[in-house]
Amino acid sequence: MTGIKVAGDKKLMLFSGRAHPDLAAEVARHLGTEVTPTELREFANGEIYVRFEESVRGCDAFVIQCHTSPINTWIMEQFIMVDALKRASARRITVVAPFFGYARQDKKHLGREPISARLVADLFAAAGADRLMAVDLHTAQIQGFFDGPVDHLHALPLLAEYVTSQVGPARLTVVAPDAGRVRVAERWTDRLGCPLAIIHKRRDVARPNLVNVHDVVGEVAGRTCVVIDDMIDTGGTVVRAAEALTARGATQIIAAATHGVFSGDAVERLAKANLSRLVITNTLPSPETVPSDGLVVLSIAPLLARAISEVFTEGSVTSLFEGES
Amino acid sequence: MTGIKVAGDKKLMLFSGRAHPDLAAEVARHLGTEVTPTELREFANGEIYVRFEESVRGCDAFVIQCHTSPINTWIMEQFIMVDALKRASARRITVVAPFFGYARQDKKHLGREPISARLVADLFAAAGADRLMAVDLHTAQIQGFFDGPVDHLHALPLLAEYVTSQVGPARLTVVAPDAGRVRVAERWTDRLGCPLAIIHKRRDVARPNLVNVHDVVGEVAGRTCVVIDDMIDTGGTVVRAAEALTARGATQIIAAATHGVFSGDAVERLAKANLSRLVITNTLPSPETVPSDGLVVLSIAPLLARAISEVFTEGSVTSLFEGES
Amino acid sequence: MTGIKVAGDKKLMLFSGRAHPDLAAEVARHLGTEVTPTELREFANGEIYVRFEESVRGCDAFVIQCHTSPINTWIMEQFIMVDALKRASARRITVVAPFFGYARQDKKHLGREPISARLVADLFAAAGADRLMAVDLHTAQIQGFFDGPVDHLHALPLLAEYVTSQVGPARLTVVAPDAGRVRVAERWTDRLGCPLAIIHKRRDVARPNLVNVHDVVGEVAGRTCVVIDDMIDTGGTVVRAAEALTARGATQIIAAATHGVFSGDAVERLAKANLSRLVITNTLPSPETVPSDGLVVLSIAPLLARAISEVFTEGSVTSLFEGES
Amino acid sequence: MTGIKVAGDKKLMLFSGRAHPDLAAEVARHLGTEVTPTELREFANGEIYVRFEESVRGCDAFVIQCHTSPINTWIMEQFIMVDALKRASARRITVVAPFFGYARQDKKHLGREPISARLVADLFAAAGADRLMAVDLHTAQIQGFFDGPVDHLHALPLLAEYVTSQVGPARLTVVAPDAGRVRVAERWTDRLGCPLAIIHKRRDVARPNLVNVHDVVGEVAGRTCVVIDDMIDTGGTVVRAAEALTARGATQIIAAATHGVFSGDAVERLAKANLSRLVITNTLPSPETVPSDGLVVLSIAPLLARAISEVFTEGSVTSLFEGES
Amino acid sequence: MTGIKVAGDKKLMLFSGRAHPDLAAEVARHLGTEVTPTELREFANGEIYVRFEESVRGCDAFVIQCHTSPINTWIMEQFIMVDALKRASARRITVVAPFFGYARQDKKHLGREPISARLVADLFAAAGADRLMAVDLHTAQIQGFFDGPVDHLHALPLLAEYVTSQVGPARLTVVAPDAGRVRVAERWTDRLGCPLAIIHKRRDVARPNLVNVHDVVGEVAGRTCVVIDDMIDTGGTVVRAAEALTARGATQIIAAATHGVFSGDAVERLAKANLSRLVITNTLPSPETVPSDGLVVLSIAPLLARAISEVFTEGSVTSLFEGES
Amino acid sequence: MTGIKVAGDKKLMLFSGRAHPDLAAEVARHLGTEVTPTELREFANGEIYVRFEESVRGCDAFVIQCHTSPINTWIMEQFIMVDALKRASARRITVVAPFFGYARQDKKHLGREPISARLVADLFAAAGADRLMAVDLHTAQIQGFFDGPVDHLHALPLLAEYVTSQVGPARLTVVAPDAGRVRVAERWTDRLGCPLAIIHKRRDVARPNLVNVHDVVGEVAGRTCVVIDDMIDTGGTVVRAAEALTARGATQIIAAATHGVFSGDAVERLAKANLSRLVITNTLPSPETVPSDGLVVLSIAPLLARAISEVFTEGSVTSLFEGES
Repeated sequence: MTGIKVAGDKKLMLFSGRAHPDLAAEVARHLGTEVTPTELREFANGEIYVRFEESVRGCDAFVIQCHTSPINTWIMEQFIMVDALKRASARRITVVAPFFGYARQDKKHLGREPISARLVADLFAAAGADRLMAVDLHTAQIQGFFDGPVDHLHALPLLAEYVTSQVGPARLTVVAPDAGRVRVAERWTDRLGCPLAIIHKRRDVARPNLVNVHDVVGEVAGRTCVVIDDMIDTGGTVVRAAEALTARGATQIIAAATHGVFSGDAVERLAKANLSRLVITNTLPSPETVPSDGLVVLSIAPLLARAISEVFTEGSVTSLFEGES
Repeated sequence: MTGIKVAGDKKLMLFSGRAHPDLAAEVARHLGTEVTPTELREFANGEIYVRFEESVRGCDAFVIQCHTSPINTWIMEQFIMVDALKRASARRITVVAPFFGYARQDKKHLGREPISARLVADLFAAAGADRLMAVDLHTAQIQGFFDGPVDHLHALPLLAEYVTSQVGPARLTVVAPDAGRVRVAERWTDRLGCPLAIIHKRRDVARPNLVNVHDVVGEVAGRTCVVIDDMIDTGGTVVRAAEALTARGATQIIAAATHGVFSGDAVERLAKANLSRLVITNTLPSPETVPSDGLVVLSIAPLLARAISEVFTEGSVTSLFEGES
Repeated sequence: MTGIKVAGDKKLMLFSGRAHPDLAAEVARHLGTEVTPTELREFANGEIYVRFEESVRGCDAFVIQCHTSPINTWIMEQFIMVDALKRASARRITVVAPFFGYARQDKKHLGREPISARLVADLFAAAGADRLMAVDLHTAQIQGFFDGPVDHLHALPLLAEYVTSQVGPARLTVVAPDAGRVRVAERWTDRLGCPLAIIHKRRDVARPNLVNVHDVVGEVAGRTCVVIDDMIDTGGTVVRAAEALTARGATQIIAAATHGVFSGDAVERLAKANLSRLVITNTLPSPETVPSDGLVVLSIAPLLARAISEVFTEGSVTSLFEGES
Repeated sequence: MTGIKVAGDKKLMLFSGRAHPDLAAEVARHLGTEVTPTELREFANGEIYVRFEESVRGCDAFVIQCHTSPINTWIMEQFIMVDALKRASARRITVVAPFFGYARQDKKHLGREPISARLVADLFAAAGADRLMAVDLHTAQIQGFFDGPVDHLHALPLLAEYVTSQVGPARLTVVAPDAGRVRVAERWTDRLGCPLAIIHKRRDVARPNLVNVHDVVGEVAGRTCVVIDDMIDTGGTVVRAAEALTARGATQIIAAATHGVFSGDAVERLAKANLSRLVITNTLPSPETVPSDGLVVLSIAPLLARAISEVFTEGSVTSLFEGES
Repeated sequence: MTGIKVAGDKKLMLFSGRAHPDLAAEVARHLGTEVTPTELREFANGEIYVRFEESVRGCDAFVIQCHTSPINTWIMEQFIMVDALKRASARRITVVAPFFGYARQDKKHLGREPISARLVADLFAAAGADRLMAVDLHTAQIQGFFDGPVDHLHALPLLAEYVTSQVGPARLTVVAPDAGRVRVAERWTDRLGCPLAIIHKRRDVARPNLVNVHDVVGEVAGRTCVVIDDMIDTGGTVVRAAEALTARGATQIIAAATHGVFSGDAVERLAKANLSRLVITNTLPSPETVPSDGLVVLSIAPLLARAISEVFTEGSVTSLFEGES
Repeated sequence: MTGIKVAGDKKLMLFSGRAHPDLAAEVARHLGTEVTPTELREFANGEIYVRFEESVRGCDAFVIQCHTSPINTWIMEQFIMVDALKRASARRITVVAPFFGYARQDKKHLGREPISARLVADLFAAAGADRLMAVDLHTAQIQGFFDGPVDHLHALPLLAEYVTSQVGPARLTVVAPDAGRVRVAERWTDRLGCPLAIIHKRRDVARPNLVNVHDVVGEVAGRTCVVIDDMIDTGGTVVRAAEALTARGATQIIAAATHGVFSGDAVERLAKANLSRLVITNTLPSPETVPSDGLVVLSIAPLLARAISEVFTEGSVTSLFEGES
């Protein structure tokens, strides 16, 4: 028989865009390796240039990029990194987007809108991505926007463990700050065994041009309320929730979210809100100026590292979550 | 110059599987045409045979099939019809699935599950579908599962108009029977300007093996409650909601849902529930035995016909909904 | 150099739908493993639910399903299993369909028909199948309907060995029961070195509305005739062949086919036919009531197990057949 | 409303490769137009150059090429023509291959073979073809190798009309020259209402190294035999059939085939055979030296022109055949 | 016959991203229509939102976006616009990118680089683009990066006409400022019938760490030199060319380029260079501060409008260029 | 846990078409293996037949074919080999085309032309190729025509080493024989540190119907000129360059090119030209009659073997070139 036979092996390599290099470095440390050196820069007109400084042929590539501001630049950088890996013969390419951009445009709210979350998933596939990994997608259905395996990780255990280390479950009420978060809030109440309340944004039909009313549905008086959300963007949702809960007699308010986006003057607004704690993870880099003493940032890196390791060694990512979805 | 030039034209043709021919015939009447005669039958071993009895070359084909029981048979029949249209040179093929099957499996709840709603969308695309039309998808994100235009129609105006013709909005409270329906319930409260309540399924952490508790979050005592849902399947959700609302002092309970699936002994269970009205549409054929006098079936055919006509003549489907999504 | 390098390995896993679990279990035994435990059930409205109970990440998956009645349900189940494997990161997915459904619709007999065999192959590909394995496809061209490797296995050695163990080749005539089976019949005559006859279905031009005439082309008087076919469906073809051969003086008639579909009242019809033996394999589950003493069911499991093993270990499937195609 | 609206129209354009320009010109005449002038030539190293001399933007393009010798050159030329049409914005491209090359490699006869007929269909699709049109594909299943509409035309009515104009059906027996042609032979007997015979190639098991025996199955003594085939390639099949039929007492032998390939010394071999007539069509150009007075070449151009016209005007190609498939 | 037949028509609609709305408005004026009103804005975290304010169903859409700074934002905006058009049932979508971004990364200069120009073309296709239109791609091969029609327009006639209106060809020498521009320079010399010179960047092998030497190959003393390029980015190439030409005795230097990118301090550098004229087109918006009196900006809008009109009415874009490629 | 786990391995197999078997055999020797025995022949009508004589299941296949005359036949043969490998379950397929055919049609020079280089890349992909390997593509952008890894090898080090072994760099001038080769010429001057000259083909505007003028741009008098090109096809370019250089006083002329196509009467023309040496590689088989004593053929086989080995063992191909692109 003709041919040359050798033993097969496989090699994990970790790559990072420029959006949040600290997180990638921390993941690498947990994995016991380093981020592969990569030349990443912009030409004079803003076009991004990528080159890997080591051979990536045949590797199992994990490309971490956080879709933080300037978001379109960092997404394009990740597309280009994937293209370069594909053309350099990486065996398998996993896009790791701890915060997956454009996730909120996951359906057409009105006619003639895009479904940008599906678009971004398609563009990653077109660039050459084989797999996606993300933390707390805005809606779980986004898993179905990618035609391949998606590892969907959850910060809930991390966040909930911190909250219950501070406040006993008996005093807690979990609050969904709007209708879209009720399902996630139920996952919290299932875990903590505590009651639920909902902030319900209601248009006043009689006065259609006025602002919406924010009703609190459920009992919150005398309770420590944990307002949960997937992300803190402008902070408006949490701030309004805090106002409504305070008005209804909540004794203490904690906000817990996976992604700290902190757009615009979010930091200032949150600083003024009646929040005893604001708990987030580091899926996104922290803003330069952060809300004063109340901010707690938990590291998502150990979870990412464990998931990447399971994917590489073909263990079970499911086992990391014991039934969360 | 060489070649032969003629004026272009276009031709709408309407096709129907065997799942719900009455609905297709009603749509055809509203359009002012007839369903194209089609031979549809099964071979001895259950394989489906399709043949169109007229030329379909160049037509703008709309293929109606309701994903009712036996659901896999009817979905396969629609795949096969699409394949036959593609191979017979239809110019454009729109799959019309008033009730889109497998929509509830729209994400992985646990590891190693399928995302069957995405799968079904992909299979329609593989068979040759260019477009999808559906009524009240289980979640709006399913629009993003298909890589092409999706016309997502809503029965809410139809259902809400009926409800308000029976009960004045001032007496109504809209009830989401579980966390997944809160967003849709808010669309009702926006339209009707009335309060919201939620049935919240809570696991009792102290007694994990016992059944869940169904809390009512929000005020319902003395109100006429409209329990809304996208579908009535086993009826369990609505029946449990009715029990919880009755226990909390609701004066009257109406259930309103787009799709009347009525699986298993749903009809019997609903007959025993404390419901003054059960309002659905005919996106699915009615069960042979229906709940007695309380059932109201509204026809979705005029809406489907208008949407098909807009698609064919390249008008605006968006305009049918004035801001619903 | 950065990165983590480990030795590669690969893992065969065997999955089975609910259509014919006995066959899958038998294949597993021959391979020296077990079918991977899988939750398979239907929701109230007939939608199928699948979940694998062990991690399948990185495995070389073989998914056995027999396309028996209810055929559309079992095909959909196999699509859904493939989707779940793809999304759970199986490395390679081989669809094993011992009897491949819709194979008879392998071309357009008339305009505006589907080519359902191609469609089913495309749908498996869209779901995520990398490879197909099947036994005695209705026509060998179906191999070309799938854009990837197809392992096409043959029961002929198995069936022929049994027949010649019962009757010496010198007394045998191989009979093709219709024009489409003549090529397969020639493979039998090549193997056994015996004569060929053909049942030729002829329309009587003078009396076009009457039934067809079944001519026997070739010598059969005084011979033991082996009527061969790929499948016994309604039994009509074999029964008519037996009648024609009896009328022409055949002394004994054996029917041999790979697939025992036995639709409708096939069992009753065959019981009354003049057949000394009906030899099939277990590519399909046996009907509950089977034709009395004449039925012989040979197991295809050893062949499937050997082929799966060759595919997994990257040996040669071709070598199993020594020139059969 | 913004935008510019104009009436739509459509334009048929006919293109021809260099393999058989006479046929294309004849088709154009029947359509009432001309073949679009096209620069077609080879560079010094044999690479083919194509350029259309008129704008083809938006046209409904039909690209005729006969896959005659040098077959790979002409197939590549057709690929390149399709690519040029696609890039020049033709609206729809139909590949017209009256004789579709590589059709005989429509399955794997042995392991590790290609399925070249599927490959060629895929390559046309990759080049940009939307549709295929062919005459008498070697097997009808090849329709399923293309993922789009295939217009499969049949020369049988043309050939049969000629044969029956020469010999009354009562004296005729239709002969399938091998097992693969029996189905086509049955279409002839169905049409003419005459008997069938088959040439059966049998390996002599006792003397495996000797040449095959060609049995005649069926009655041919005293009959006028019409040996039918899809193509005359080396002529060997027909010549051996004529010898066998003569030996069995046939009084006269006519050969009828759609495609006259005439490879190698086919013309010489056929000239020596005992054939009273050899009837073919002009799907391929005639060889420079043809068999003497017995050859009859019928024109396929009217059929191609009618089919192209039906496709362009979106009439029915099916109606051209009244039930042939 | 069933179905509804109406006359076909088609509708051009013009869309513009936010990068260079003046150019789009000018193109619309030349076409005699307006840019379709479109809501385009950014969410707080920089994600782009798009919605068309009129129905686009069935339109022939032309989406103009200039890939100017911030380039990744504008490219993403164009992807999202294409996605929204696709999902809103536009019939055909042409991406109009007068300056096509990332065109300079059209090959791998070193291993492990991306080919970003191909990537961007692929991403447009994945988003739903059917066609591309661009002016003076960095290399003509980029046409082949898109799997569909590309209309490649040329500013050379426009630029050359201006230059010859200022200086007689007899006094002109065309100068390619580097090796990559020699082919384009030859198109100028072919048109103007004047001599060619080349700036040749040479590494000094003896002193590898020193800067490159810029040789002038060809005669330039006493000539008016037209330094041609596809784009002026940092201005470095043109400035160095001007220095080298001045040193070699050129009497006057004109720079002519299609795209005025003007990155970084290009404006300042060019202002100091020995250029009598700098001629560009408005494929990109002009920088806020422009080089003083020497800058001439010619409008590309008439050319884009004519090309769009030809594409829409299915005329000939080729005819606009008489042999340019 | 269920399933069977074994160690992974991988196997390189080398295949060769019939165009240039000597080169493949030489590559195999350098790799320390043999070309896998393959049946390759033509049917009577020119259709190509392929069958591999050993199992190729799971192998890492490298398929060498040189696109020499008859070029379309050899390209089709390579398509068919790839198809057969794909269907026989090769794990990965690399097309090795030392001379990649149709590379010169890499853009539309005029409207309504194909981009045949992209087409050929697409057809290889459609047949099943995962990767391409080629030597000195006509333009480097062709790397971007394939949607996957392309290993682009360079003969420059080989050719330059030979030239400098014959003539000291101080006496050399590198000459680009036309505008398209200037970039490659600069790679030579960078390597050798010697001056550049260019042959500039100029149309005489005053006498448009006359032949072009071939100017020499740069100093060549008294120099040894190395005319470089990617290929010698008809020899015309080199012959005209030699004439122009001789006229301008060059003392000696060497021609160096990667690919020796030698079409038409190239051998005769070159024999008469004033060339002291003609240096090529064996990417193509040598013509039967070669130019007399001046021809030097260097073997590309060691380079191909090293690149194949690096690809197989997942080393670095980039490292073979130290910065060449």
